[in-house]
Amino acid sequence: MPDPIITLTTDFGAASPYAAAMKGVILSINPAVRLVDLTHQVPPQNLRHAAFFLVNAVPCFPREALHVVVVDPGVGTERALLHVEVGGHRLLVPDNGCWSLLADDSPPRVTRLTQRRFWREPVSDTFHGRDILAPVAAHLSLGVGPALLGPAANDWVRMPWPEPAATEEGLTGEVMFIDDFGNLITNIPAAEWVQLGEVPARVSVGGRSVGPWVRTYGEAPAGTPVALVSSVGLLEVAVNHGSAARLLGAAVGAVVEVSWRA
Amino acid sequence: MPDPIITLTTDFGAASPYAAAMKGVILSINPAVRLVDLTHQVPPQNLRHAAFFLVNAVPCFPREALHVVVVDPGVGTERALLHVEVGGHRLLVPDNGCWSLLADDSPPRVTRLTQRRFWREPVSDTFHGRDILAPVAAHLSLGVGPALLGPAANDWVRMPWPEPAATEEGLTGEVMFIDDFGNLITNIPAAEWVQLGEVPARVSVGGRSVGPWVRTYGEAPAGTPVALVSSVGLLEVAVNHGSAARLLGAAVGAVVEVSWRA
Amino acid sequence: MPDPIITLTTDFGAASPYAAAMKGVILSINPAVRLVDLTHQVPPQNLRHAAFFLVNAVPCFPREALHVVVVDPGVGTERALLHVEVGGHRLLVPDNGCWSLLADDSPPRVTRLTQRRFWREPVSDTFHGRDILAPVAAHLSLGVGPALLGPAANDWVRMPWPEPAATEEGLTGEVMFIDDFGNLITNIPAAEWVQLGEVPARVSVGGRSVGPWVRTYGEAPAGTPVALVSSVGLLEVAVNHGSAARLLGAAVGAVVEVSWRA
Repeated sequence: MPDPIITLTTDFGAASPYAAAMKGVILSINPAVRLVDLTHQVPPQNLRHAAFFLVNAVPCFPREALHVVVVDPGVGTERALLHVEVGGHRLLVPDNGCWSLLADDSPPRVTRLTQRRFWREPVSDTFHGRDILAPVAAHLSLGVGPALLGPAANDWVRMPWPEPAATEEGLTGEVMFIDDFGNLITNIPAAEWVQLGEVPARVSVGGRSVGPWVRTYGEAPAGTPVALVSSVGLLEVAVNHGSAARLLGAAVGAVVEVSWRA
Repeated sequence: MPDPIITLTTDFGAASPYAAAMKGVILSINPAVRLVDLTHQVPPQNLRHAAFFLVNAVPCFPREALHVVVVDPGVGTERALLHVEVGGHRLLVPDNGCWSLLADDSPPRVTRLTQRRFWREPVSDTFHGRDILAPVAAHLSLGVGPALLGPAANDWVRMPWPEPAATEEGLTGEVMFIDDFGNLITNIPAAEWVQLGEVPARVSVGGRSVGPWVRTYGEAPAGTPVALVSSVGLLEVAVNHGSAARLLGAAVGAVVEVSWRA
Repeated sequence: MPDPIITLTTDFGAASPYAAAMKGVILSINPAVRLVDLTHQVPPQNLRHAAFFLVNAVPCFPREALHVVVVDPGVGTERALLHVEVGGHRLLVPDNGCWSLLADDSPPRVTRLTQRRFWREPVSDTFHGRDILAPVAAHLSLGVGPALLGPAANDWVRMPWPEPAATEEGLTGEVMFIDDFGNLITNIPAAEWVQLGEVPARVSVGGRSVGPWVRTYGEAPAGTPVALVSSVGLLEVAVNHGSAARLLGAAVGAVVEVSWRA
């Protein structure tokens, strides 16, 4: 059996020693762990970014991987730390809802971390990633069962998917996520439109009309804002060889309108 | 035998979930793979940056490593995806020439990826890294032979090395690459000058004279632009404790002139 | 026994091929090595940043890990390259003092790297990370003993911890490090204050008063500068959901004053 995989997703940034410290703590407890960096550059405290990141990355992993997520604006307060089994995947996360989008039809199994014997001592008030999540992850990788970590939890913070709303002419939604290319990913499911052979007549972001509708970036001239189906099936607005975020001045939360009427 | 190594080189950026998704896909097919990040911060769609990056990094690796490169402005268009054996190394790349600089005297062996049984389904139009290159890489790491991936290719996109030209007084070339220190790496081979004991009397970048000629950064006072042989044997212009790109206002493509006459 | 761990800490930046080249060199000599990135984004030539980074990260690692550090403003000059055993950890570093803060009560054991048979040939003048430290690290991971690398050294560059000074009302120190959140970590030990139940009446950075004193970020309203004990026991100034560096306009070296008098 291959050595256990632990992935790390944090907002620690590129030059801070915090992710490195967590790696050291994990390897000190289980030197056989294979560490996989997902990102350490979630924008600081940005739970929505973390949630969208996780829902796009975690389902690609094998079920055996354990995902440690430290985007934790509530560190040191009464917020809980959780072991979560959801959608066939396992995470260690602060109770802030950033794993909600991974939920499927089966109810998640959630454990609240309370058993200090799996923690690092002393536990600081500002770095539970190093002092609690990392050592708990390492112990899980050694075969400790989640039931030993603390009591089952029945309630937790939820971050619901912001559902698009129907309008007279189509749908209204919002920009969910902006990737490093400046592509705008919306909350509007679009994969089925293409399968049905029907695409919107008009798409706008923040009131600015975009188009044409394309299958992939390279179908439009460089610099043109286009609408398409993103790699995760959502409506995306992009600019071939450019940044839609910059060209359209759009931020997360910008209103996206879709119309079937020309 | 050690577990197989797959490296990743992309322009996905630091905060996007795309590299993480590829890692998950690879580990889902072959959980024993050891992933090695080369970079995820090639500037967006910058094939020249990717080419220079690869020619400096890939030759250092053992031949067993498999290098997956996703800088792919043509994703979803008719451009092919390739398995390439070149210079004793193996890559999976879009057919955009970014591997050309690795060519040696032996002809490369190139396979066009067409066998969908090694792909992830459904294949999106905008993320072939996740849906084609990652699963193909994982299957190769399990022992699938390149011949099973598709037909041999006889033609592919080439990105030739921009050769410097002789002038009356010496050579003219260009800035090929700017590293994160702001050092300017040119396309002018310089290693032999030093071996022969002859260095140029004058070097200029974008018309601005630089110098003195040094062996290493620390030989010049901080803040002075200097000329030297880079760690890959090319003429480099640098600033000790500073950024030559910023000080000289130079970008990739800037004209570099070398003169043997004082 | 798990495969050997080699960590990498550099100032090479995110888009340069230098870290990748080192990884390749290591794996070419010992393909079984498990590589762990600590950071490649130490600010260029910033030894103080590197020193603080290392003292926070390295002690978390198991003793078996080997830490390769390439922040090397003196590359190619007469500065030595060292194998250091300090505080129960092993490093390969240029002789620039960035490992000094790891010192404990036992004297470090330092070896000067002179045995070229463990180096890569030819050795460039500007990239000893690739040509000396990486191959030496790989050979160490194969079981080569440090005594084979060169002679023991009795003298080396030291970077002393800047001690805070007593004032009439308390202490004066400085900002040691700014993390990616913009938190200001000072050189003033603060953990014991809290254990003793006594916290300063006033804290200022660069003459600007900050407060209140909190146990963790979330105890203050968003946007308020607060003082607290950092995760490594030092006095820290932070802003809940914000950047103290930006809000206070503070840089490394800014004067920090602590007063017990209200």
